[in-house]
Amino acid sequence: MTRRKPTLRASIEELGSFGARRHEDRLATEEPLEVRLAWPGAAVRRVWVTMRTPGHDFELAAGWVRHEGIASEVGRIAYCTDADLSADEQFNVVTVTLSGVPLRDPGHRHDATSAGSSACGVCGKDSIADALVAPLAPAWTGPLPSPEVVRSLPELVRAQQPVFERTGGVHAAGLATAAGEVLVVREDVGRHNAVDKVTGSRVLAGLSPAEAVLVVSGRAGFELVQKAVAAGVGCLVSVGAPTSLAVDLATKAGLGLFGFTSAERTVRYV
Amino acid sequence: MTRRKPTLRASIEELGSFGARRHEDRLATEEPLEVRLAWPGAAVRRVWVTMRTPGHDFELAAGWVRHEGIASEVGRIAYCTDADLSADEQFNVVTVTLSGVPLRDPGHRHDATSAGSSACGVCGKDSIADALVAPLAPAWTGPLPSPEVVRSLPELVRAQQPVFERTGGVHAAGLATAAGEVLVVREDVGRHNAVDKVTGSRVLAGLSPAEAVLVVSGRAGFELVQKAVAAGVGCLVSVGAPTSLAVDLATKAGLGLFGFTSAERTVRYV
Repeated sequence: MTRRKPTLRASIEELGSFGARRHEDRLATEEPLEVRLAWPGAAVRRVWVTMRTPGHDFELAAGWVRHEGIASEVGRIAYCTDADLSADEQFNVVTVTLSGVPLRDPGHRHDATSAGSSACGVCGKDSIADALVAPLAPAWTGPLPSPEVVRSLPELVRAQQPVFERTGGVHAAGLATAAGEVLVVREDVGRHNAVDKVTGSRVLAGLSPAEAVLVVSGRAGFELVQKAVAAGVGCLVSVGAPTSLAVDLATKAGLGLFGFTSAERTVRYV
Repeated sequence: MTRRKPTLRASIEELGSFGARRHEDRLATEEPLEVRLAWPGAAVRRVWVTMRTPGHDFELAAGWVRHEGIASEVGRIAYCTDADLSADEQFNVVTVTLSGVPLRDPGHRHDATSAGSSACGVCGKDSIADALVAPLAPAWTGPLPSPEVVRSLPELVRAQQPVFERTGGVHAAGLATAAGEVLVVREDVGRHNAVDKVTGSRVLAGLSPAEAVLVVSGRAGFELVQKAVAAGVGCLVSVGAPTSLAVDLATKAGLGLFGFTSAERTVRYV
């Protein structure tokens, strides 16, 4: 069940300067995913809801748990089998069972009534440094990619984006070595989810998410830098612009940050 | 204080196939904004935290309150003056005072520990229809723009994006008439915030946010459709792709939805 309904068809009317044309088109699927957390001696609790593209849901949950600093590995992950959920709904609820108690209170960084992933516990009274989650295992200390390799990465990741190819409507994230070998690529309507899936794929495979390069298809905001630091990667390569807070955080954490990356150029923020 | 620090300078190293070049570049500012809500007889409560580009903060708060169905207008909005906040932090906290009780529980749609703006109360057990907030005033019933006008709108909005011009790192939203007159444009690192600011600018000016067209610079996901329906606009025009849930919701709500819009073409989802 890792690639359920990646795209849907919709009736469209194309209205160009050439006139109108009716046909069908594929859409990137967007559905809610609720993540529940359980550990020995504690009741199951709902900890996160995100809008995501179905597929690699267990990776999404495992990567989120790791990026939040809740646990470095997960004991068991399963779709929900509550009798009061429909068959469709059961695949929109995932329960992560930890083998021990969480390393960090799963609610700690999200204590506003509706502070979501785009907020992550940063409020008027918290310092920026508090917002950073330290990696749960040694961070990458190996070589970083050369500028030539950095410039080659977006195209290499793009070549592994089947859903984008069909819909034009999803973001992607990829993990790559310093030599430019792309190890894993994941797609999602939410760019943060794509990064969670990449880290989760490593965690579930028993591998470290701390590789040389995390590549993202969009811009580099605060939260992507936060996830890159939590995963322990050496640098973050984005196709778009970084924000001021992204540069601040990357500098504080010693994370390499590249923006506006294409085959022709990249910009390193120093 | 509506245009504080829209961009910051950062040292960069540009690494192109032409070689390396060090210089300074401007970044779009990203900072947290905490929104607090107060009404007669109730204690002030923290209801939302978002990462946003500072500027038009009162509009952002007023538009969010309207899109959430909490109130159709706000009594008073002010930056926080808590003694324990630094001067900088005070400008990252806004208190919205309503003249009456909220029309909707501000926590109702966000009851997971960390369900944020990208989740909006849609979970495994909620129906999609529950996720829609009905407009608090009559929705647009006037004419919709012609395909020619729709295709002209992204460029007209783009012409009013000073921060994007300098940084390449922000999204924009605009409100336009059926004839293609752009009434207001707002920018933000978060595309949802840009839409909140547009609606908020109308609310604070005592005008209806229910115009013919809402234009957005990115893709059209679930949440942007939700905001467009709550604002009561006639149609949503996006430059990028819509998601499956966006098309579902727009169809259910009777909202016109256009994607992949450029000067050359647009696609209407029907």
